Amino acid sequence: MTDFFKGIPVVTYEGEASTNEYAFRHYNPDEVILGKRMEDHLRFAVAYWHSFAWPGGDPFGGQTFDRPWFGDSMDLARLKADVAFEMFDILGAPFYCFHDADARPEGASFAESTRNLEEIVDYLGEKQATHKTQLLWGTANMFSHRRWMSGAATNPDPEVYAYAAATVKANMDATKKLGGQNYVLWGGREGYETLLNTDLKAERAHAGRFLQQVVEYKYKIGFTGTILIEPKPQEPSKHQYDYDVATVYGFLKDFGLEGEVKTNIEQGHAILAGHSFEHEIALASALGIFGSIDMNRNDYQSGWDTDQFPNNHAEKALAFYEILRAGGYTTGGTNFDAKVRRQSLDAEDLILAHVGGMDTCARALKAAAKMLEDGHMEAARATRYAGWQTSAAQAMLEGSLETIAADVMARNVNPEPVSGRQERLENLWNRYV
Amino acid sequence: MTDFFKGIPVVTYEGEASTNEYAFRHYNPDEVILGKRMEDHLRFAVAYWHSFAWPGGDPFGGQTFDRPWFGDSMDLARLKADVAFEMFDILGAPFYCFHDADARPEGASFAESTRNLEEIVDYLGEKQATHKTQLLWGTANMFSHRRWMSGAATNPDPEVYAYAAATVKANMDATKKLGGQNYVLWGGREGYETLLNTDLKAERAHAGRFLQQVVEYKYKIGFTGTILIEPKPQEPSKHQYDYDVATVYGFLKDFGLEGEVKTNIEQGHAILAGHSFEHEIALASALGIFGSIDMNRNDYQSGWDTDQFPNNHAEKALAFYEILRAGGYTTGGTNFDAKVRRQSLDAEDLILAHVGGMDTCARALKAAAKMLEDGHMEAARATRYAGWQTSAAQAMLEGSLETIAADVMARNVNPEPVSGRQERLENLWNRYV
Amino acid sequence: MTDFFKGIPVVTYEGEASTNEYAFRHYNPDEVILGKRMEDHLRFAVAYWHSFAWPGGDPFGGQTFDRPWFGDSMDLARLKADVAFEMFDILGAPFYCFHDADARPEGASFAESTRNLEEIVDYLGEKQATHKTQLLWGTANMFSHRRWMSGAATNPDPEVYAYAAATVKANMDATKKLGGQNYVLWGGREGYETLLNTDLKAERAHAGRFLQQVVEYKYKIGFTGTILIEPKPQEPSKHQYDYDVATVYGFLKDFGLEGEVKTNIEQGHAILAGHSFEHEIALASALGIFGSIDMNRNDYQSGWDTDQFPNNHAEKALAFYEILRAGGYTTGGTNFDAKVRRQSLDAEDLILAHVGGMDTCARALKAAAKMLEDGHMEAARATRYAGWQTSAAQAMLEGSLETIAADVMARNVNPEPVSGRQERLENLWNRYV
Amino acid sequence: MTDFFKGIPVVTYEGEASTNEYAFRHYNPDEVILGKRMEDHLRFAVAYWHSFAWPGGDPFGGQTFDRPWFGDSMDLARLKADVAFEMFDILGAPFYCFHDADARPEGASFAESTRNLEEIVDYLGEKQATHKTQLLWGTANMFSHRRWMSGAATNPDPEVYAYAAATVKANMDATKKLGGQNYVLWGGREGYETLLNTDLKAERAHAGRFLQQVVEYKYKIGFTGTILIEPKPQEPSKHQYDYDVATVYGFLKDFGLEGEVKTNIEQGHAILAGHSFEHEIALASALGIFGSIDMNRNDYQSGWDTDQFPNNHAEKALAFYEILRAGGYTTGGTNFDAKVRRQSLDAEDLILAHVGGMDTCARALKAAAKMLEDGHMEAARATRYAGWQTSAAQAMLEGSLETIAADVMARNVNPEPVSGRQERLENLWNRYV
Repeated sequence: MTDFFKGIPVVTYEGEASTNEYAFRHYNPDEVILGKRMEDHLRFAVAYWHSFAWPGGDPFGGQTFDRPWFGDSMDLARLKADVAFEMFDILGAPFYCFHDADARPEGASFAESTRNLEEIVDYLGEKQATHKTQLLWGTANMFSHRRWMSGAATNPDPEVYAYAAATVKANMDATKKLGGQNYVLWGGREGYETLLNTDLKAERAHAGRFLQQVVEYKYKIGFTGTILIEPKPQEPSKHQYDYDVATVYGFLKDFGLEGEVKTNIEQGHAILAGHSFEHEIALASALGIFGSIDMNRNDYQSGWDTDQFPNNHAEKALAFYEILRAGGYTTGGTNFDAKVRRQSLDAEDLILAHVGGMDTCARALKAAAKMLEDGHMEAARATRYAGWQTSAAQAMLEGSLETIAADVMARNVNPEPVSGRQERLENLWNRYV
Repeated sequence: MTDFFKGIPVVTYEGEASTNEYAFRHYNPDEVILGKRMEDHLRFAVAYWHSFAWPGGDPFGGQTFDRPWFGDSMDLARLKADVAFEMFDILGAPFYCFHDADARPEGASFAESTRNLEEIVDYLGEKQATHKTQLLWGTANMFSHRRWMSGAATNPDPEVYAYAAATVKANMDATKKLGGQNYVLWGGREGYETLLNTDLKAERAHAGRFLQQVVEYKYKIGFTGTILIEPKPQEPSKHQYDYDVATVYGFLKDFGLEGEVKTNIEQGHAILAGHSFEHEIALASALGIFGSIDMNRNDYQSGWDTDQFPNNHAEKALAFYEILRAGGYTTGGTNFDAKVRRQSLDAEDLILAHVGGMDTCARALKAAAKMLEDGHMEAARATRYAGWQTSAAQAMLEGSLETIAADVMARNVNPEPVSGRQERLENLWNRYV
Repeated sequence: MTDFFKGIPVVTYEGEASTNEYAFRHYNPDEVILGKRMEDHLRFAVAYWHSFAWPGGDPFGGQTFDRPWFGDSMDLARLKADVAFEMFDILGAPFYCFHDADARPEGASFAESTRNLEEIVDYLGEKQATHKTQLLWGTANMFSHRRWMSGAATNPDPEVYAYAAATVKANMDATKKLGGQNYVLWGGREGYETLLNTDLKAERAHAGRFLQQVVEYKYKIGFTGTILIEPKPQEPSKHQYDYDVATVYGFLKDFGLEGEVKTNIEQGHAILAGHSFEHEIALASALGIFGSIDMNRNDYQSGWDTDQFPNNHAEKALAFYEILRAGGYTTGGTNFDAKVRRQSLDAEDLILAHVGGMDTCARALKAAAKMLEDGHMEAARATRYAGWQTSAAQAMLEGSLETIAADVMARNVNPEPVSGRQERLENLWNRYV
Repeated sequence: MTDFFKGIPVVTYEGEASTNEYAFRHYNPDEVILGKRMEDHLRFAVAYWHSFAWPGGDPFGGQTFDRPWFGDSMDLARLKADVAFEMFDILGAPFYCFHDADARPEGASFAESTRNLEEIVDYLGEKQATHKTQLLWGTANMFSHRRWMSGAATNPDPEVYAYAAATVKANMDATKKLGGQNYVLWGGREGYETLLNTDLKAERAHAGRFLQQVVEYKYKIGFTGTILIEPKPQEPSKHQYDYDVATVYGFLKDFGLEGEVKTNIEQGHAILAGHSFEHEIALASALGIFGSIDMNRNDYQSGWDTDQFPNNHAEKALAFYEILRAGGYTTGGTNFDAKVRRQSLDAEDLILAHVGGMDTCARALKAAAKMLEDGHMEAARATRYAGWQTSAAQAMLEGSLETIAADVMARNVNPEPVSGRQERLENLWNRYV
């Protein structure tokens, strides 16, 4: 045991009345909701990068955190893993997620970086064997090092594409070895700074072929997890190719991958793209590409990716409602892609941030489940669209503009508007949150 | 002749030195650019709605314009057409565009509205026969009347879908009759106010089927123009299904229409969706769905659709550069979907706004053409991606992650970043604008 | 009794367990919170304009509502007032607010408009005498009519300034007569569309003098209410002079009015200005100019003024917390500057929207009061700034850069950062909402 | 001579026809505009931080630039200064600007940091003595080091206030010694992350007192330059106290400093605050607090501070027009607070970026000057407000609401709207750009 979290107790459920900061007031893993344990619904994951690799910098300031594991040696990488699993234990987190660069020091060559990764993967595997926490997904950091500055798969230099391909292979191998349930691709540099120097069409074609190769490799090695793309509109790039769920869908269709790849949807990225979080989930579900969630919140007054912990259950209930309507997660989960503020220096800040986030989600899930169970919301929706259940309506869809127009003339159709009842439904929602 | 534009002369080209407000300083229709007359490049169209149907209201204020043709009779509709063609003549505009609701009074029934439309279409046809100006595209206004408040093709009520189908049929018939070169669909109400009352999947399916019926009808009547969708992210709806070019592409792919339907891209809509105008054009071109342009500008500090006349040629040159790179328009054109400010009350404001807009575009086109002709920009782009022309790079795309990774290891690939030269290219651009 | 709300019962408090849509679950007027009745804390007001004067239009569509009182006669104006007070009774609203233009038909001259206003004011006075509901504030609509298109007090034409002055006088007289507790100025047209035609300095000077005249008139007639300015950054203007609370403060200081005029802060306007609602309240309180609230919510993905009913109590609790910290309202109140969506056609939508809004606020108030009462949040704040309570710190403020620098050198000052504990405080907040 | 810029020639004016990348096409220092040399109008300054201290990182990636002077020794600091002055020479820049942290390595104590600063200031003084380039302004970096994470003058810890005061003293001393014409304060950390842990009123009071101490110290040491505040709405903080020009004005008024302190206005900060650049300049001018300019451009689709080089002269002409209307700079200048993109790795990118920026500004200035000289724009403005020059209008301002209302009644005032002529004026503007 390291002493990083010394004095911080294991966090357990104590119920709403508890005033213990180190207790869950809403997250009760074993409580059964809609026939499933809460833990199995929520499938919480802790993100390695924000909690263990991020030094607290921002565009105008450097490191604020002092962590004993900061540095570039394999020993420090192991110390970091030790601390990470101590935090997972404290929180009772069933899952974690990581990029290669979070977990291992960069080597002087690709070969050395890969050896470092393999070594730390073995160490993480040992950790997993002796702890509850397992791998929700692995991924490759192809955005921080300067080699990626102009893109990974979409780089003007094919040598970088090669390096990216080799990197993803190594990370897919690592993810498979650790029993990861998904493999995620976030293309932070797959975009452009200026159209003036960009061959949009070629870059998109390379990105498409790259993703096909990823899927081919998945089958080759028998990785049974899900391949996930994480949409984001911009930042660090001016424009990113995986802008939002709708954009990713068109991309997948274009490369014949809509049956192979799903989406990992982040709240903050949805907001930056001009959408609500629940919109992105609902759309992915409608398109058959909903996979997993990066849970966080973006400040509504900030135009960059703030990655804060969620703290408004009433709002998140709308997201979980869409997840439940979509049938819940299969291989996906609720990954906290959230970081404590750079002023939150202490070990306890890390723990309390996650406790608050988990409780917010648990409370949101319970509200959403109850709303679904009671059925009033869905009944109202069904009533609103009831007209489409008639055979006449279905026949109209089979018909032509001409036949429909003739019918409109014949029946002198003149539809009277019907209230959308938005406020009434918002009130109904408020009954649950 | 009406006397609405009394005293305003026909606007002709006088060159940059002119200080005559009623002259073009840059738009010289017969000047040959890249082997084509400027008029044939730009294919300007005037929008009927903003100039002749909009009363000058905004969300906090009502009508400011006094126009002798305002009112609901057929006589006034004909007066409006007379004035419109007088303006087209003054500007020498080769095209115009209209919605049914701009041109004819709403009737008490669908039948009466259609009769009104047919009558005014005949009148417009006579106008076209005796004037230079022809129809770039027609479209149906399926957003202003209260019947559309919850959507047209995506309405929860199938009777509204029927009404929409009949309406589009009537407008396609009208467009064909007038020799329109395109038919446009803008789905201002095809979206939602709240997910709580929305069946996203069903609405999307209905929209897809509707568009298929439109395409089927096009072939049925032998309409040889292009069907265009106009993306917009929101407003009037909270979320609109045709959010942006990428979203429309996924939608078209889903319904098998990517070879049938193209996009009509509006500057202001691009901005509201978080994109630059040139991005949307470049993307549509890369995806093979670039069709036409709604030219205007959105105020960069306003979060709603301001529909102002373009006035920055340096910025618009980037858009025309992408249009030229895409091969220019085929059936498309440059439609001014722009309105004078509601304080611009006078007849002369209408004329001068168009003169300024046309000159801005002409100047932008000339700069873009010169930049393309000189070839420096494209040479820089080609150099940046030259690595992809090697057989090794192409073989890599054929290969697998495994073979690539082996190669990376074998060659100890370690790519060195290369300057993206953005500022240098921006300087180059500035040499032309 | 009109029959507009026929069948809709008076809404009373039934408690959280109630599933009656026409009951309050949280708003219990007589419940005592921090020593004051809930009704006296919240001081709810209904806005005449949104509920009774707005026809349901938006920038792309016209009227959706059918209201029997729509039209321009005095009889219809009285019918409107009848219905309004019926709604106030149903809701038990202690207050309402109105503009002249909401309540009376525009006349053919200023004199006729004023007579119409006086007549309807008498009628409203009779209503007030026989109903619970009283006037929170009056105001003049100086933005809808075309005469205001280029500003009221800031119009380039002094005749419009004159008309505005006369209009405000009439409305202040009306407000005084009805016992209004405040008089509000919202300058929707006091701004510009383009700097090119604007004399910013002159317009600002005129606005300042106008406000002085308003204050002078207040004393002249012995109006004992508060004069309030309502900040908004833009819309309908591109830029409005009363941008936000900080801007208004500078303006008041400049014209010597910071002791005379306070602010009426709207949630949606705060959001459009890039601020949180609670920021604007906290700042106004710190500056001594907090007056009243326009309660609503702005859609976080829309860039225009959506004026929706509030529906997230957890978020609004932050606003009420700042109001309570500021000592609560004096003459101010919680005015619902919110409108049902244009698809919410029915009488019941109007009622339920207010019920939901009132319950959201009541729940928020209770959470905020409990948080304040428990004192943990304020204790944490006090601890964070405790260093400033030392005499050394206060002496430093009295000192000079030189003496401080000498001290820093002498003591080798090297401050160690301390955690800001944001997540912990967010968790604490969540204990209450 | 270092060899960093080896092979890059001194940049001189060659005129518009030049295709030499290392020539000015518009910036001709000795050309006389409105009676003043262009160099004396524009007063260009190079920012030390972006060009010499920034390593090319962004929130998702680290250093991309390899610079021989990167590191923490005094020798490297001198090398950096050598290279900087070589660049100033190449560009013929009359001014530069720097923060302490750009120019000297941080010491282990305040004393050591100050010694380092003094030493490098002496070195910079020698450079200035032998080069054309002089100091436009100095400033203190009170945002990068972790000690500032919760604010400098507004820190909850008074020890940090002390450290800030000592730091500003050292930088004011340095600025005076180097003959700097201004001293700038940018409060990147003077704001908050969450209101929950913030005492807004106390922090504002401390900031006000701090600024008073700065002004007192200016007089104490006989610094004859201007004290400038640089507004920015947010980033790095969620909210910054110096939000925009209007906010700064209210702050200055509150602390009696409106006659002592002016503003340094940055284009990108204006955009992030929801304003156009020219608005902020025009407002500062109207309020008497216009001082200097941080010239750059913010990407219109990015919600963070992109600090790009300006490249649209037509847009910048509007800013220079307001500067000229304000009488031009006195001690202020045009400081390029702009950085090459992190992909622009090469020495030549640094030079060309500045060449492009200087040419953009020169071209904008010339257009603005011509527009002012011709007088059409100002004549139109004067005409629009001509009504205010009458004695009746002035008397009205002296009068009361009552007298004005009586006059409105008596004369039956009913003002007719007049066209704002926005598009016509935009066309006029386009004649010059």
